[in-house]
Amino acid sequence: MAKPKSAITPTRSENFPEWYQQVIRAADLAENSETRGCMVIKPWGFAIWEAIQRDLDFRLKATGHENAYFPLLIPLAYLEKEAEHAEGFATECAVVTHHRLESVKDENGKTRLIPAGKLNEPYVIRPTSETIIGAAFSRWVGSYRDLPLLINQWANVMRWEMRPRLFLRTAEFLWQEGHTAHETQEEALAETHMIHQLYSDAIRDLLAIPVIMGEKTETERFPGAESTLTVEAMVQDKKAIQAGTSHYLGQNFAKAQNITFVDRENTEQHVHTTSWGVSTRLVGTLIMAHSDDDGLVLPPRVAPQQIVIIPVTPKEETRQAVIDSCEALASRLREQTYGRELLRVLVDKRDLGGGVKKWDWVKKGVPIRIEIGPRDLEERKVCLQRRDQATNEKTFMEKNEFLRDAVEILDSIHQSLLERARDFRNANLTECPDLAPFEKHWDHSNENPGWLITPWAGSREEEEELSKRLKITVRCLPVGKQNEPEAPCFLTGKPTKARAIWGKSY
Amino acid sequence: MAKPKSAITPTRSENFPEWYQQVIRAADLAENSETRGCMVIKPWGFAIWEAIQRDLDFRLKATGHENAYFPLLIPLAYLEKEAEHAEGFATECAVVTHHRLESVKDENGKTRLIPAGKLNEPYVIRPTSETIIGAAFSRWVGSYRDLPLLINQWANVMRWEMRPRLFLRTAEFLWQEGHTAHETQEEALAETHMIHQLYSDAIRDLLAIPVIMGEKTETERFPGAESTLTVEAMVQDKKAIQAGTSHYLGQNFAKAQNITFVDRENTEQHVHTTSWGVSTRLVGTLIMAHSDDDGLVLPPRVAPQQIVIIPVTPKEETRQAVIDSCEALASRLREQTYGRELLRVLVDKRDLGGGVKKWDWVKKGVPIRIEIGPRDLEERKVCLQRRDQATNEKTFMEKNEFLRDAVEILDSIHQSLLERARDFRNANLTECPDLAPFEKHWDHSNENPGWLITPWAGSREEEEELSKRLKITVRCLPVGKQNEPEAPCFLTGKPTKARAIWGKSY
Repeated sequence: MAKPKSAITPTRSENFPEWYQQVIRAADLAENSETRGCMVIKPWGFAIWEAIQRDLDFRLKATGHENAYFPLLIPLAYLEKEAEHAEGFATECAVVTHHRLESVKDENGKTRLIPAGKLNEPYVIRPTSETIIGAAFSRWVGSYRDLPLLINQWANVMRWEMRPRLFLRTAEFLWQEGHTAHETQEEALAETHMIHQLYSDAIRDLLAIPVIMGEKTETERFPGAESTLTVEAMVQDKKAIQAGTSHYLGQNFAKAQNITFVDRENTEQHVHTTSWGVSTRLVGTLIMAHSDDDGLVLPPRVAPQQIVIIPVTPKEETRQAVIDSCEALASRLREQTYGRELLRVLVDKRDLGGGVKKWDWVKKGVPIRIEIGPRDLEERKVCLQRRDQATNEKTFMEKNEFLRDAVEILDSIHQSLLERARDFRNANLTECPDLAPFEKHWDHSNENPGWLITPWAGSREEEEELSKRLKITVRCLPVGKQNEPEAPCFLTGKPTKARAIWGKSY
Repeated sequence: MAKPKSAITPTRSENFPEWYQQVIRAADLAENSETRGCMVIKPWGFAIWEAIQRDLDFRLKATGHENAYFPLLIPLAYLEKEAEHAEGFATECAVVTHHRLESVKDENGKTRLIPAGKLNEPYVIRPTSETIIGAAFSRWVGSYRDLPLLINQWANVMRWEMRPRLFLRTAEFLWQEGHTAHETQEEALAETHMIHQLYSDAIRDLLAIPVIMGEKTETERFPGAESTLTVEAMVQDKKAIQAGTSHYLGQNFAKAQNITFVDRENTEQHVHTTSWGVSTRLVGTLIMAHSDDDGLVLPPRVAPQQIVIIPVTPKEETRQAVIDSCEALASRLREQTYGRELLRVLVDKRDLGGGVKKWDWVKKGVPIRIEIGPRDLEERKVCLQRRDQATNEKTFMEKNEFLRDAVEILDSIHQSLLERARDFRNANLTECPDLAPFEKHWDHSNENPGWLITPWAGSREEEEELSKRLKITVRCLPVGKQNEPEAPCFLTGKPTKARAIWGKSY
């Protein structure tokens, strides 16, 4: 059947940012609200986040972390303790100054509510919780026996964004934030690296996105951190998305907040802390990484429904038999395990035409669509369509064969998405040894160029000048590329073994 | 072994409110923070909430509800639309008036942060989300085909409480809030009642608490609701806790927020809405319902660890064998299912004395403690202690017998807690036909009296006068007791078939 009008307009190549908005709308994932910069996450979008949450929560618990919950509101005095941190977040904090409302009549006699009950000390809504969790840690830690402290929180946070974009940058977002305290620098660094790897693995296994692991330069570090590790994803417009970060905070927060312990030699010491997080931004990342001009393409592990079965019922007399057969197939599929979860299978019995239903699930990104009609019933066959293949491609399979192979097919969809994304990323990550081709590379008026990897020994100032001038950033100093054969820095000419990846980013 | 000092001081009978605080402290469930009225939920307390969440989430999804997420901040204009609702929450709203901070030097030259970037329109932090979810519903609903809309949200909410108490009443708390929209009053009422029953069942099955289901009087109704159904729990000081509510909102919010649809006759209509929620208050309820003078007593379904195995290792030469045996037992237990989840079993290998460990788990409320020592190893026995029995009571069992019966024993602990709570509640719920004994009943200076059930036909004003004078409230008009044999109202003497339950409450 011909494509309906509902395939995404504009296409990716016509206008990528607008295409992104339209994919979200067509898949019914989220929408803007009247609260400035805040989105409503609709059921199909929220179910993707829930799948990410379940998997990450499992991985974090399996590595010894425990969930807890800390207050939404942070006293200003807490922020003031760590100057660099405060400065980093001060420009985007929502501030609570009153604790009740009073009714007044306005000039038209209408009842209006105005803030009342002014607080002596205002609070900010957490932009992140290092300070308030640090205050708790300072109460909880007394001796080395209390360490390590491995805490995670699932929460909403708020950063007053000037240019919000659904999922990628919203004033309020949902995330997990890990906060740990350790006896030694070595242990804290090991934690930071372990989480870095955990994020990379989870994003590959769940979202079929191959990230580049690396360290941020000083310019791009988390405010107050000693080092920030990052996982960087390339999406289809070749821009970078920072998909998760893991920070070693040294003793900075411990000193600001007085988190001390008596060590094994009976000496009082400050702990070493870490923090790390991923957010609903991952949903935006997966949309931009995999979706196409027909709509959302979901990696199977996080698909709210992994298989949708559409009964094709042209004649009333075979209708019930077809539906029964679909339900029976769904039941048997739902008994199967995919990863740590049961298969999620829906039979679409809505009173709508087959074409409408099909395009609905195409736009919503369901990995496998199955159609069963009266003739398939007789032949014990199913018609299979994969979301990672062309929309008109159909495969007929024995029903029993499909039952046996369904999980394998889902896995092969996952693999094909991952490989496609990896090939694309590799094809758009180019080595660049000199400044002249480097500058020329970013000088595109239409298309967004890919990433460059360069020998790098510049200073913070040199990096900032270049970044500002070319509207790019160092995405990271990639892991495994910091001890390369010595080469001259592309900017300064100083010999260096280090490499940096540059790109435009969200 | 003798009880250590760490059993709870004061006891329940000495000072119930202080005992409650001390149980929370001894079990390490939560603590106060420096954010006024807000608590930190520590890992052991949060894991109880997570168990409640998992079960409720399953039940809500199984009954067709989908999770979504709506903004934390509500524009004042939304609140202003429903006058009664606005009035009900205005006195306890945290108000956001600014969106950044500025650094200034104070008189001592210290850097201080002050609110800056004043908002034209302030926001309140959601005290509940009827208004902002209603605004979304008015965008989402166009035709009867879009109905019913069955949405649930897991979220934090904030009500500026003047007299906070850990879990029971905190300025910020965690909850689920369901919001649904329907074509007809009949369907919306059916939803309200279905959820009412779902809450009652879940609280019985999870928390081993027998609630009384009933309807609130007009005085106690949710602001803006047509009717409020409640589940009321009696705790050990005989006070009532409103453990969950389900509201039929009629067309009040639909009219205020313009949620309309084109019905089957092609006429535009307002939807009928419901809302309903339970919160972290359930954790406080279970503490007060079951715990004793030795500390927390956890209903097995929500225990973060259901079985703790303590290796008893007096001699170095048998130490490893004992630990291995404990681990082997734990592994086999962890393969078993209890309810919809795998058994949660911990082997306590900490380098601490057996008595210290034992009392630690007593205070933390673990349902089953198992001790295994060198002699038990030889005899293939385990020493079992149940948290619902006296602390010094021990049962020796064949290890294989325990493996076979563990789930059954947990269930019998659940049943014994439920029955104990039911017997207590029934013993403290008394019929009272007349005003004189009614007034006398509440006139206790020390002990808190139980609930009374009375024939009731009073007006709102009469109820309020009586409630205020005696410091009690109508807890509910209990389901199944509103068509009793006619009797004179205990207050007004008017003949009535209705009955009301009165009590002191949290």
